[in-house]
Amino acid sequence: MKIAVLGTGDVGRMLAGRLLAGGHDVCLGSRTGESEAAVAWMAEAGDRASLGTFEQAAAWADLALLAVSGAHALAVAGRAAEGLAGKVLIDLTNPLDFSQGFPPRLSVCNDDSLGEQVQRALPEVRVVKTLNTLANPLMLDPAALPGDHDLLMCGDDAEAKQQVSELLGSFGWGQPIDLGDITNARGLEMWLPLWTRLYRALGTGMFNLHIQRGA
Amino acid sequence: MKIAVLGTGDVGRMLAGRLLAGGHDVCLGSRTGESEAAVAWMAEAGDRASLGTFEQAAAWADLALLAVSGAHALAVAGRAAEGLAGKVLIDLTNPLDFSQGFPPRLSVCNDDSLGEQVQRALPEVRVVKTLNTLANPLMLDPAALPGDHDLLMCGDDAEAKQQVSELLGSFGWGQPIDLGDITNARGLEMWLPLWTRLYRALGTGMFNLHIQRGA
Repeated sequence: MKIAVLGTGDVGRMLAGRLLAGGHDVCLGSRTGESEAAVAWMAEAGDRASLGTFEQAAAWADLALLAVSGAHALAVAGRAAEGLAGKVLIDLTNPLDFSQGFPPRLSVCNDDSLGEQVQRALPEVRVVKTLNTLANPLMLDPAALPGDHDLLMCGDDAEAKQQVSELLGSFGWGQPIDLGDITNARGLEMWLPLWTRLYRALGTGMFNLHIQRGA
Repeated sequence: MKIAVLGTGDVGRMLAGRLLAGGHDVCLGSRTGESEAAVAWMAEAGDRASLGTFEQAAAWADLALLAVSGAHALAVAGRAAEGLAGKVLIDLTNPLDFSQGFPPRLSVCNDDSLGEQVQRALPEVRVVKTLNTLANPLMLDPAALPGDHDLLMCGDDAEAKQQVSELLGSFGWGQPIDLGDITNARGLEMWLPLWTRLYRALGTGMFNLHIQRGA
């Protein structure tokens, strides 16, 4: 599959590398298409990798991942909107506000969410919120954390969620727990104030939630 | 131990019954001390059970559980404040606001929490926030859900958290994950918007989170 990764930070480069290793063609999208981080990544990324602006990456791709900080999510999604029309966008952003220190507060929560804001800003795009609930080394490598643990997702388009489930399944995830439409991004993002405190208490991000269920 | 359960709703009566079965003396506290639900409960509760007003139950007890709806938590805690001076109060309330339907929003979150509000209102009382993260049939009966699953807690007083851990341990819980001081109630309460959506998606409240950790 031709996959655009929008964002060249730690998360974006980690995901791009995993997607290449999984046999996909990857375009790493950035503001200028030639950021230092992107060029350094490209030098070792091989034939199936390419670089582009957010617009170029989105237009080229079959599916895209929004992998930027919460503060930039809407601006970057907006630049990708035209190229992504009719396509699936995996939104893994979190509206984290570190301006008052750690643990971060959320810049939006309770009656709205960043996932909903992205979907409202890109009505032609099929947004699936997932992967925002765990550390980036685990996102496309669940086996890095032994034992049972879960992925959650939500979105308005059932076919898009099915497509994302299959992509994630190819990286080792079981069927994600589907919470329903995109308004459920409120629940997925409000997990972060607990995640960040668990991160501090446990001294590591190498953990994930498992929903233990009755028989 | 002499334990006051403040609240005669489903949660309070469930907890009171479990505490009696665990060998504790229990006073079920209510507004008048003789609500219909309390009197009906008392008729079958045996010799180690008693009824009282919130003030009476708090003054009698060694330790109390705040088991009322979030909307009433501060008012009830305030009535118990004098009787609880120097004692431990387990706050298992959640600031759920159902006025806009299900799933509920939170009436306080992000920059404050109900746990912090209770602690601020009762500065002489050692508040431990825990048990708010799961369905009431599991609170004092973790074995009702087979497999590994976790309890979380926070509070300003280390000795109080130790005392609560021992009480919970006597009901089968492993050591709760201690998130730190009472400000971490923000994380524990912001789990509810995800819990309520999981409840809807799974069609049952008989689940709990397990924090899967690396080796």
